[in-house]
Amino acid sequence: MSQPSSRTVPSARPIGIFDSGVGGLTVMKALIERLPTEDMIYLGDTARVPYGNRGPETVRRYATNAAALLRSHDIKALVVACNTASAYALEALRDGLDIPVFGVIAPVARRAAELTETDKIAILGTRGTIQSNSYQRSLLNLRSQIDVYPVACPLLVPLAEEGWTTGSVTEQVIEHYLSPLSGTGVDTMILGCTHYPLMQQTIAEVVERLPFEVVTLVDSARTTSQAVEEALREKSLLSDENAAGVHRFLLTDLPQGFIETAERFFGRSLDGACEHVDITDSTFSLVVPPTG
Amino acid sequence: MSQPSSRTVPSARPIGIFDSGVGGLTVMKALIERLPTEDMIYLGDTARVPYGNRGPETVRRYATNAAALLRSHDIKALVVACNTASAYALEALRDGLDIPVFGVIAPVARRAAELTETDKIAILGTRGTIQSNSYQRSLLNLRSQIDVYPVACPLLVPLAEEGWTTGSVTEQVIEHYLSPLSGTGVDTMILGCTHYPLMQQTIAEVVERLPFEVVTLVDSARTTSQAVEEALREKSLLSDENAAGVHRFLLTDLPQGFIETAERFFGRSLDGACEHVDITDSTFSLVVPPTG
Repeated sequence: MSQPSSRTVPSARPIGIFDSGVGGLTVMKALIERLPTEDMIYLGDTARVPYGNRGPETVRRYATNAAALLRSHDIKALVVACNTASAYALEALRDGLDIPVFGVIAPVARRAAELTETDKIAILGTRGTIQSNSYQRSLLNLRSQIDVYPVACPLLVPLAEEGWTTGSVTEQVIEHYLSPLSGTGVDTMILGCTHYPLMQQTIAEVVERLPFEVVTLVDSARTTSQAVEEALREKSLLSDENAAGVHRFLLTDLPQGFIETAERFFGRSLDGACEHVDITDSTFSLVVPPTG
Repeated sequence: MSQPSSRTVPSARPIGIFDSGVGGLTVMKALIERLPTEDMIYLGDTARVPYGNRGPETVRRYATNAAALLRSHDIKALVVACNTASAYALEALRDGLDIPVFGVIAPVARRAAELTETDKIAILGTRGTIQSNSYQRSLLNLRSQIDVYPVACPLLVPLAEEGWTTGSVTEQVIEHYLSPLSGTGVDTMILGCTHYPLMQQTIAEVVERLPFEVVTLVDSARTTSQAVEEALREKSLLSDENAAGVHRFLLTDLPQGFIETAERFFGRSLDGACEHVDITDSTFSLVVPPTG
């Protein structure tokens, strides 16, 4: 499917947000708080979740399909609210699209590098994100003397998806992951997973109880949404509407219990705004019209 | 690929074991304890795990591919050590194969129905297994007056895969899932997931602490392996070898950290016995030679 010609002025078009599952909803939620009058379309590739275990080629193919589907809805910018796709597919998406494309890794790494005073930064993420070295590379490209402390926290995603965002179990799991960091001089922690904003308060409480100096948490939802707002303002792509934006949710599969989990991530009802879409390699591909 | 003609006497051929991931290794481990001289080939469809969220048609297609791949290794029997595939694909596999096919649901349901005195049986499983109603149906087909108490325990699989099989966190999670059952008169609990034998001791300890009468745990690994042994003996398909059996492990993907997790499930080293195999819809399909 070729990309549609723009039927409206660019700034009035929706922002597209893409994730393999529900995690990206924390990014969309932060974007809505910041840009309440923007129209937004979320695409969750729930039929092919999780991306974390797939090879880079497969992730690029899936992300390209997803981006093309969103592009067919005439989006003005694409937010890749998925760590795996941000790590492996961002360049391919930027090459294939004629709109601004944002990932979740670079803005967060940049913010953490600005904030740290000890140049010691911890990265909390899924095993896949940690093993991809994407945050590590991004930080070291910014300043090579940064000491990076990667911490794989594989139990936090299932806990967040089950709604166990507070309480004794989650506190003990977080303490298990973070206590080896105390005494290292780490003063900044990257919450390198779109699920973690849901348990940010609990993480902050555990950090406070452990023998750390003052630690700043940098989460991908708020940091990415700030970067998106700044870039769209600079490009004069912010909507000048006054009414609240329209939000749509496209899902490639609707597994049982999904809406409940999604609403937990989104922080409010998705009342009837979820639509099922088919996505296959052949249906949607990026065909960029020649420029000029 | 058509099924090979048997090159050896049937009883000398290996047993095939299939799961979407690592869970089935607990079944293989129990089978080896029971049948140490049998050759066995395990197939983990790790490239397409998890099956739990896929539709019945997809699960049937995946399971049929996997069975055909194992059949091409001249197996004498197939153990479907996967709850989802046992629920959705067993009949198709039996129709398509000329060897005995065993699932994990029916033997466990039968054993639980034999053991209960109160006719109140709990089923612990993943959300997918519980929602499939497969154990529930199987129990009610055996005896319609059985009261079934299904309990979705979604956090137990990630805890088991991470090696958190004992300790305070896992105990609290188990207690959270099981405490609503106390006072119901449940005297038998089906561990309806191949991951759960790894935390069976912890489950038993929590049950003992909670205000339950005596409760018997029925796990799929030991119960299925017993059913397989009995059926193969009856069909004169047990090996008459005296030497220890040869064990091979075929995996459709080798994600990082997989071997470590697999060894935790298997209870010993897989030293070099893992092989990568490609599996696609087109490579392997069941072609049953006409009988008679």
